[in-house]
Parts: sequence; C-alpha cells; structure tokens
Amino acid sequence: MSEAASEKKTEETDLHFLFQPRSVAVVGAAREPEKVGRVVFDNLIRTFSGPVYPINPKATEIAGRRAYGSITEIGAPVDLLVIAIPAPYIKAVLEEGARAGARAAIVISAGFKETGIEGARLETELAAPARALGIRLVGPNCLGVMDTASGLNASFAGALPRSGGVAFMSQSGALCTAILDWAHGEDVGFSKFISLGNKADISEIDLLPWLAADPQTNIISMYIEGISDGRAFMTAASAAAREKPVVALKSGTTNAGAKAVSSHTGTLAGSESVYEAAFRQSGVIRAATVQDLFDYALGFSSQPGPHGRRLAIITNAGGPGIMAADESERRGLWLADFNPHTVENLRRALPAEASVYNPVDVLGDALADRYGAAIKSVLADPNVDSAVVILTPQAMTEIGATAAAMTKAAAGVGTKPVFAAFMGKSLVDEGTAVLRAGSIPNFYFPERAVAMVDAMVRYSEAGSLPEETPTKLPVDREAARRILNRAEEEGKRYLVDVEALDVVKAYGIRTPRSAVASNQREALAIAAEIGYPVVLKVSSPDVLHKTDVGAVKVGVENDFELRRDYRDLLSNVEKYIPEAEIAGVVVQEMVRGGKETIVGMNRDTQFGPLMMFGMGGIYVEVLKDVSFRLAPVTTEDAAQMVREIRSRALLEGVRGEERSDTDAIIDTIMRLSQLVMDEPSIAELDINPLLAMASGSGAVAADVRILLEAKS
Amino acid sequence: MSEAASEKKTEETDLHFLFQPRSVAVVGAAREPEKVGRVVFDNLIRTFSGPVYPINPKATEIAGRRAYGSITEIGAPVDLLVIAIPAPYIKAVLEEGARAGARAAIVISAGFKETGIEGARLETELAAPARALGIRLVGPNCLGVMDTASGLNASFAGALPRSGGVAFMSQSGALCTAILDWAHGEDVGFSKFISLGNKADISEIDLLPWLAADPQTNIISMYIEGISDGRAFMTAASAAAREKPVVALKSGTTNAGAKAVSSHTGTLAGSESVYEAAFRQSGVIRAATVQDLFDYALGFSSQPGPHGRRLAIITNAGGPGIMAADESERRGLWLADFNPHTVENLRRALPAEASVYNPVDVLGDALADRYGAAIKSVLADPNVDSAVVILTPQAMTEIGATAAAMTKAAAGVGTKPVFAAFMGKSLVDEGTAVLRAGSIPNFYFPERAVAMVDAMVRYSEAGSLPEETPTKLPVDREAARRILNRAEEEGKRYLVDVEALDVVKAYGIRTPRSAVASNQREALAIAAEIGYPVVLKVSSPDVLHKTDVGAVKVGVENDFELRRDYRDLLSNVEKYIPEAEIAGVVVQEMVRGGKETIVGMNRDTQFGPLMMFGMGGIYVEVLKDVSFRLAPVTTEDAAQMVREIRSRALLEGVRGEERSDTDAIIDTIMRLSQLVMDEPSIAELDINPLLAMASGSGAVAADVRILLEAKS
Repeated sequence: MSEAASEKKTEETDLHFLFQPRSVAVVGAAREPEKVGRVVFDNLIRTFSGPVYPINPKATEIAGRRAYGSITEIGAPVDLLVIAIPAPYIKAVLEEGARAGARAAIVISAGFKETGIEGARLETELAAPARALGIRLVGPNCLGVMDTASGLNASFAGALPRSGGVAFMSQSGALCTAILDWAHGEDVGFSKFISLGNKADISEIDLLPWLAADPQTNIISMYIEGISDGRAFMTAASAAAREKPVVALKSGTTNAGAKAVSSHTGTLAGSESVYEAAFRQSGVIRAATVQDLFDYALGFSSQPGPHGRRLAIITNAGGPGIMAADESERRGLWLADFNPHTVENLRRALPAEASVYNPVDVLGDALADRYGAAIKSVLADPNVDSAVVILTPQAMTEIGATAAAMTKAAAGVGTKPVFAAFMGKSLVDEGTAVLRAGSIPNFYFPERAVAMVDAMVRYSEAGSLPEETPTKLPVDREAARRILNRAEEEGKRYLVDVEALDVVKAYGIRTPRSAVASNQREALAIAAEIGYPVVLKVSSPDVLHKTDVGAVKVGVENDFELRRDYRDLLSNVEKYIPEAEIAGVVVQEMVRGGKETIVGMNRDTQFGPLMMFGMGGIYVEVLKDVSFRLAPVTTEDAAQMVREIRSRALLEGVRGEERSDTDAIIDTIMRLSQLVMDEPSIAELDINPLLAMASGSGAVAADVRILLEAKS
Repeated sequence: MSEAASEKKTEETDLHFLFQPRSVAVVGAAREPEKVGRVVFDNLIRTFSGPVYPINPKATEIAGRRAYGSITEIGAPVDLLVIAIPAPYIKAVLEEGARAGARAAIVISAGFKETGIEGARLETELAAPARALGIRLVGPNCLGVMDTASGLNASFAGALPRSGGVAFMSQSGALCTAILDWAHGEDVGFSKFISLGNKADISEIDLLPWLAADPQTNIISMYIEGISDGRAFMTAASAAAREKPVVALKSGTTNAGAKAVSSHTGTLAGSESVYEAAFRQSGVIRAATVQDLFDYALGFSSQPGPHGRRLAIITNAGGPGIMAADESERRGLWLADFNPHTVENLRRALPAEASVYNPVDVLGDALADRYGAAIKSVLADPNVDSAVVILTPQAMTEIGATAAAMTKAAAGVGTKPVFAAFMGKSLVDEGTAVLRAGSIPNFYFPERAVAMVDAMVRYSEAGSLPEETPTKLPVDREAARRILNRAEEEGKRYLVDVEALDVVKAYGIRTPRSAVASNQREALAIAAEIGYPVVLKVSSPDVLHKTDVGAVKVGVENDFELRRDYRDLLSNVEKYIPEAEIAGVVVQEMVRGGKETIVGMNRDTQFGPLMMFGMGGIYVEVLKDVSFRLAPVTTEDAAQMVREIRSRALLEGVRGEERSDTDAIIDTIMRLSQLVMDEPSIAELDINPLLAMASGSGAVAADVRILLEAKS
C-alpha cells in the first residue's frame, strides 16, 4: 500500500471509530446527575453495548460502575473519547488518550472560539495536535454524536431517536435539540446525528462522503451557519448528492453584507447569491425554512423519488384539490394527463358525479375502497410520476381505512412517491399513524405535500443531468498573464480600456479593434487603420465613469470630427478632474447594434469566483435582474445563467427584433470563467457592455474593467 | 319607523334567527342514527337549550322525543328550519314553515346547482320565494351552521367547537370539516361557523356586516372559491375590515383564464390580479395557503394588534434567532432598535456572553426567570411593537415555566402581540399548552411566528390609512359621452386615434394636439397650425398595430417631408392591408421626451373596471411589471400603483436622468378611473404610451385605444 493510500485508509477508519467505537471513555463523567459529563455517561450506558469508562479522578464509582482516575488507569484500549472538562485541560487528555489508542474524540466542553481570542487560541491548540496524534475530533462546544445503528448516544442532546434513514448535522446545538424533539413527536428515524459545534477539525466536508457511503443513511440533512472552505464543501456535496439527497438550511442569508465593492457584479453578489449558486451547482436541495428542512427530511427518507414532473392529485373535496393544483402550477410541476385507460378505470370505480380527470375528486362520501381504487388506477398510469392524496374528515370518511388502502396502493407500485395531506388534526391523526407505519408522511396541508414533490423533482432532475466537466477552451494564457504581471509590477489595481480589453481578448473574447494614441496625429493614424466611424475615450486610471465627465465620444465620422472631439475630450477631463493622470486617448472601432448585456465576476472569500450575467444598463442597475454561478462553469451552467433572467425574452427577439447570439454569450461566460480560474489575482471583472449581436454574429466586449487583488 | 328602516330591521332580525333562534325544526330528522337528518338532530339537542322539533311523517318518536308529521302539527312558533329532505320537496316545506313563523332556514340537502341544469332550476325556485316568505336561507348543499354562544349546532359537521373569537365561513363543506378537526386538535375557539354551500341566498356579503357587529367574533376568516357580486363583496368586506381583521383564502387563482382580450391590460389582468386588488383595497388579509389561514385565525384571535413594524426577537439559540431575523427582513418588518434603558436592563438581567441587542440571545442555559426578565424588559421598550420568543428544548430549558413567564410578561403589557416559536414537538408541547392557556399561540417555527406578526402589521397599517373617497374631478362628461354615443350608433367597437384621444381629453387628460386630414392639403394646413415637427398616422379601424405596417411617420419636419410621408403611409397600408378602410391621416403634435408608461383598464365581470399601470414597452410585454387596482381609485391607490412596480426607479431618475412627473401619472390614473366608472360601455382602454415628462411638466397620452362592450 502506498503511503498516500494508507493515510486515506486511516482517515476513513477514524470516522469509523467516531460512530462505531469498540469502547468509549467519558472524560469528566460526574457523580452529580445534572452535570453534562454525567448526562452523557448515562446516555451512553443506556444503549451502547461496548465498554464505557467513566473518567473522574475524584470518584471511585459512578452510576454503579467503577470510575477511573485517568485514561491510562483503564489499562485497556479506548477507541473514542468523549470530553466534558474545562478547556485548558483537554490537550493533555488527548495526548493520554492517543497513548491508549484513541482514534476519535468528541469535545463537548465550551470555552473556545465562541468566547473570544483566548478561546480561539485554545482551539487552535486542539485540532492540529489531535490530528497529529491520529485523533479526529468533533466540536468543541457541541452536544455530541449519535449513531442509532451502533446504539451510540455520545451526547447530552436527549434520548437516542429511533433508527431510520435521516442523517442530520448541525452547527447549532440548539437546533439539534429542536429537531430531536420534533422527530420524537413525529416518530422520524435517524441514522446519525451530529452536533458539529465549532468545527475545529471535523466539519460537513468530512462527514458528507462518510454519510454518502453510509448504508443506513438515505438522506443527508444539515443546518449551516457558515462554511470555511466553500470549494471543498462543493466538491464533497456534489459527490454526496450523486448518491442520495442532500438538504441544507442556511441561515443569515438576506443581508447582502457591507463589503465595499466597485463593480456591478460585486454590488449584486451578496452572500445569498453565493450560497444559492453553491447549493445549486452541487445539487444540494435548499430548505428555505426550518419547516421545509423537517418536511424534506421526512419525505426523502420515506418515499422513492419521482421520474418526472407529472403529479396526480386525488381528493375527497374540490377546494383543497384546487389549492394543490394552484401550488403545483406555482412550482412548475405538471398536472398529469391520464391515459384513456386510467380515465376508463376511474369512471368504473367512481360515482357518476366524481371527477375522473386530474385532480380526481372521489367525492365527500368516499369510503376507503373508493379511495383505494382511485389511487391504484392513478399510480398504475405511466403518465403519472407522483401522487398527493388529500383527505378531509367528512361525516362518512373512513380515515384509518383510507390510510391503509393508500399505503397498500403505494406499496403495490413502490417506485412512485405518494404523499398525504389528511387535513385537520384530531380525527385525521388516526390516519397519520397508519400512514406513518406504511412510510407515507402526512403533511396535513395540500401545499406542503406538493412542495415535497417539487423538492424531489428538483433532486431527480439535478441528478439526471450528465456530469459535465468545464471544457478547457484554447486560449492565449501567456498573453493575459503578461498584461496582468506588468500591471502588478507597476502597482496598478485597476485595468481599464485597451489593457483590460486585451486580457479578455487573449482568452478568445471578441473585442473592438482599438489602440491608444498619445497625440492627435497618432489618433488620426489609428482611425485610418480601423476605419471610420470610431469611438474616442480618454484613457486614465483616475476617470472611471467616463460618460459622466464627457470623456467619451461615439460616432466620430471623419478626420475633421476626430480633431475637434480629441480636443473636447481632453478639455472636458481637464475641467472636471483636473488632477487626472491621462495615459492617452483610446481610438476604438465603433461596434454598431447588439443588445447590451453584462458579464462579470466577483471573487468570494469562501467560494471563489462568482460569475454574473444580466441585461445591461437599467436591467442590472434598477431591476437587479441577474443570474449567478460559481466558476468554473460548465456549458449547461452558462446556458442556465442566460435562461434564468426574467428579461431573457429580450434576447429571444421581441417586437420583431432579431434573436441575439446567446451561444456567443455562453461562450463568453465560459471563457471568462476560465480566465478567472487561471488568474486568482483578478478580484473583480466586468464586461459592460457585452454587445450581443444577432444570432450567428457573435458578441463583442465593448468595455472591460478589471480590479486586481490588493497586495498584502 | 320608515318603511326602508323597517325592512332593514327585518333583514338584521332574520340573521339573528339564524344564529340565535328560540326554536328549531329539523325537517327530515330520521330514526336511523347514520342519516344526515338524524345527525343534525342529535347535534342540536346535545347543546341547544331551546325546543328542537324533529319532523318526520313516518316516525312518532326520534331519540326519545316526540316526532311531528309536519311543521304545522307542532302547533307552536318555529324560528329556524333545518332541512334535510330531497330537493323537490323543500319549496313546500318553506311555505309551511313561513306559516309557523319561520325566519331562517338551513338547507343541507344536496341535488341543486352542483348537479346541473335541473338542480339549478330547483335552486332558483328556492331563494327568491323564501325571501318573499320572509325567510333567509343558508345553503343548499351545505354542512350547516354553528353558534357557540347560543349552543346552536345546526350541522352535521361534527361536535360544537369550544367558544372563542374566530368566525369562519366556507364555500367548501370539506374544508369546514378539516378546520373543525384542526381546531379541536389545537384547541381553537369559534364564535360562529358557517358552511355556505351553494349560496342561493345568504353569502359572505350578508354575513360580513353581521359578523363585524358580532361581539363574540374578533376575527372573520373565510374560504372563497368564487364571488358573484364583486363590488358588493368589497363594500361589505371594507366595512367589516374596519371593525376587525378579515382573512380570506381564495383557491383557483393561478390560472389567468382564457378570456380572449385585445389590450395589454386585458392580457395581464387575470383573475389572480383582480382578487389581489379586491382584497387589498377592502383591507382583507390574504392567506396564501390553508396553513396561513389556520395560523392567522389563531394569531388574530388571541393577541392584540401591533402599532408598528418594530419586532423584537428573543431566543435561547443563535441560529433560529438569525432565521427569524432573515424572515422579518424578507417581509419588510424592522428589527427593533432598543432604547439604551432596555439594553441596560438586559445587561443586568443576562450573563455577560448574552446578546443584549436584537435578536436578544438569552443563551442555551437560560432558565424561565432569565427568559421572563428579558421578555419583560423588551416589551416595556417604547421602540418595540411586537415580540417573537424562540425556545429550543436544551438540556436545562424549563419549558413549562418559561411559557408561564412569557404569558405573564405578555399579559403585563397587554397591548403588544407576542408569539411563540417553541421548536420541536414532544417536549415543547408542555409549553404549548401553557402558552395556549395564556392566549399565546405557539407556531413551532420562527418563520411562521414572524409571518403572523407581518399579517398583523399589514392589517393595522391598512386600518390606519385615512378612509378616502375617490375625488370627483371636474371633467367634461358630456363631451366624452357624445363621442361614445356616436360610436355606438355607428356600431363601432374600437375607438382609436383622434376619437379615442378626445374621449380621454374630455376627462382632463393631456393629449397631443391633433386632427384628421382627409387629403394632403388638409394635412399641410393642420401641420401649419400645430407647427412642425409632427407625427403622421393612418387612421383606420382595420390597422391596429400601425408601426408594424409602416402606417406611422414620426418627426415629419416640413412641408416637403409631409408630402412624401403622406404618400408613403397610404401606399404602405395599401400594400400590407389592401382591404383596410382608411378614415384619413392623423396629423399630430410630436411630443418630445418623456418616459413611456402605460395606463389601462380592463372590465372584470364580477369586480368591474380593473386599472393597470406599468412602464411601457418591454416592461409590460416582457417583464409584466405592472400594478393593479379596481376603480374607483383613491389618490393613495393611484400613488401605490406607481410605487409598486419593480421598475419605479426609472421614474425617479436613474443615470442622471430627470425625475418624471409621477403626480401627473397619478392624476391620469384617477381621471381614467373616473371615466371608466362613468361609462360602463367601455370594456377596455389602453393609454399606451402615456409619456411622463420631467417632474412638473405633466404627462401626455400619446396614443389611446378604446374597446366598447359588445351589444347583446
């Protein structure tokens, strides 16, 4: 075995010892029943079958078991340490534990990063040394870890939930307690439950592959407040999402953040856009609220995924059926169009007044057998991918029997998700219990059942896209590098005009022909070569908003106009920004026509380059109608960026206009993505406008601004 | 007493007899315990204190009480009839009932409009004759009526719920059963509960004023599928909403409907827009989902309304606090900025690591007293209008005691709404029960608690607007009437060009100077009077999209150009639409500058004229960025229409442009509203574009199209 492979093996094994240790030592196990260390100890001995050693130098026995003064005193190997002693003493315990063979530790104790600078220092003294000792570490400042398969409850979060398919990890311990309480009330089963705490060592990034491979887990759910390594998270999440659904709730997303930025992309790219792009590109299903997180955990863990968007609705009441149909329309699901055979079957099974089309109305007096027949017919239809069954508790309704008929019909098919919206509470909970036993969640409200189907459809559609690696397009990397190097050497932070245009040009993005003239004579010569009309622009690092100060002249038609405009430009700048350093005057080919679009990039600290696309001008500035993806983008990502904006019809040609060349926009986005991946020194970049010509005629970057990273 | 007053009095009295009758006859009371007539009878005698007479010609006693062969046989007055016999026999029963003094009837029987034409005929034979007999009627095809104050359960919907402040009415009987079951589970109290059925006589419109005046009711909630008289509904709903919150769930709103329309306004004005406008303008709070309806019923019935948007969040867990803050930002609530005194109090009451700013984090180890102190301090702050208290069930959390401390603190203030989000299920329900006893709903999820505050804020803000009657502006009504009359006499359905411009001009809307020329010479004379440049347009009822066929010339600068363009116009139309009938050529003042906006009207069958406003061109056609209000609009309505569009910044002046004259737009909307209220023959009207000039310079209707109602 190579050294690298052996190291990888070790890492995997470490997480194994976290969830399925052969023996556990609880450091800080106390005699007092209310103390954290004691609660953890009690939880452990209740369900864990291996040896659990209480460590407490001041006790001889705890809960009727022999207590040890130190780990060494045990005299037997210990796989997992659970630590609940004050922060300053933990380092020594880890060293002692390593000598006893410990491979994993859960540090429950608080008093670290969350308390300030001194705590943060203590925390750095924990993680790396532990790794060096061969110990992987959860926490500190966490509630602990549960594994229902091994009966391990190494936590003070409460009793072990029943076993089931949901894995949950959370940065917030409090949310752990809430979800466990909810799960107990709703009888939801878990595979693993991890309170991550401060994530000094183990984070979502370590757990995602482990949970993706875990046969007990069929959905990975998590609550995230922040992610330190965005790219590593995306890699881990995408790989996991290809195996099973990954659902994430992220808090703190609405505030765009107060980072001072100068580009359009920078202004619009808040942390909300970054996370939205990161989740989407990794195939992570985003829960918008805690209730969504709970619903999705329940739904994904109990029913198979659908193969398409065609939803069937079965109801004993018209109104709620309409509400379900409304919600499915809002979410872009399709009401299944039954095949004639199904309609015929329904006609035979239901009374004449029933609706045999979708939504199927079995009528208010439907008993269980009528519901059963309808559900069975509908699920057998090849045009149906999923079903939502609505029940209102009317006078004759057989709630429990209907639930039983429903679970039977669903189980008979087995490959299509079926969800219940038994509406009400007291009476319908007779049905909820029966449904639960048959692995069908009751969402009580038609809209929530439909939302669940929608989440499943989004997951299955994301998974059905071919896995695509961003194409490496042939570019002149060296040429771009030279310009950037020179700028860096000169201590420039902004690249504009010809310099900036040449950078994107090196990556195969079309730019107008242009050159900088140092004087009028040179300008005339350049114009002669390019051919009139031309655009004149003052080139100066001090003049960022050129049109505002009259530093641009468009449509310069001949030598006479050029001479006049050249003078005007310089005197305008002299008037408005007398201190401006002027590098010359750019003479540029005048690009005619084309739709103004904008393609930009802003580099996020955690996730790297975030690409933006939108229609130019007012659409970006006023309507904020833009789309985002993290680089590197695939062709499909870039195509989605173009499709996603509300004003996309402008590119499709409205009011008799020609279709714009969206292929050229997509190509530009991909080339820009490649550039910003190659060149980490580019902090922000806007191509504004990128003029999209008529279909087949390409797109031209008419103006480009580049901001380089500040040198530290 | 005048006759009108006496009639009014009678009507009020009729509804009185529906809810608080002195005696009830159940027509169709059966011996068989499962029959509807028997279930109703059993429900009635269980809780109603007055005499209840079972009517059944085939029985001598029912449930141990004497049965009567007919109403007459009772020999005593009967206030209320509850009818559960086949449809064809009901008319005769009503007549007999009237002779016994009956003033109200609940027709539970089905077999009417819902079954087709014959049923619809039977239904028309019910309502009007009943009214003539002095009987007001609920149903047919309904579950019945409940009044907890009088103990009346004249329904087969289930047991009487506990008494409380929620009134509920529903067109769907099935939703009634679901809401009763939910209410039983959540222990929600009702004042009145009405299953409206087919609404042959009594509808929401009759019940709204009654429930608004009902001292037992403090929130009116309803489920609506369709409204027959939209204007009467709005009048009743606005009056009721001034008394107490009115919450409505409307199903079937996403499909825009397939009505063929020719105007922009018509295309965009689906039933969704109409209901949205109707609810907003009547101050009705819209529930988007059944869950919202339930939540709002619970929230409004149990807590006082807030006086502003300033929300305080108190939590024992950071994450859920952030989620609540996220949701309040999404909904436009404000996180209250505590006054220094409050911060000081919190600092004293909480540990050093706690957050004493909003959201207040009392920390995971908070016991009830710490929560209580924090809630009390926060609610005492004059900068706080409402509070959401979040609790996660952590190891030391005192759930019941915290709930008690919370209800005590909330009751101590009494004028600010306080909602709970105790997260979880099993453990936290100890708190839910305590909270419920103290009239604080637990919404389990922070987002739902915040949504509740938002609904309350929207209600109190709508109520705090001054009640405004649409101003009657001085207009030349006769002039407009003359043009419309002439068009009607000529059998025209479309008015365009000068004719249409003159209609809006008569209502004081500015239009460009223009006149129709029959030949080139006249055109030259008109142009001379108006002054160059002018616009030339072919005037023809057959040419609707003039620019598409080259039937418009703008910027005609002099006599020479006019002659040439005049010829061109006619030959273009000749070429593209040879069959077009040409009324002449319009010579029009060329309006320069101004932002293109669109103001339009489309008449809805139920609700009357729906006004639309948007930015012209692409914004309407592609982005569908428009706002709606039903006419007549008040100044505030019109101002809101202008403020509501996403692209409003275009009118505020972006990129150094001047501010547009929004006052003139508002004035135009109001004048148009007055026109379409005065002239019901106008089916659709678009002012497109209405050119909004720079602030203070007015707005000009550059083009107008009017569609008249088809004559039947």
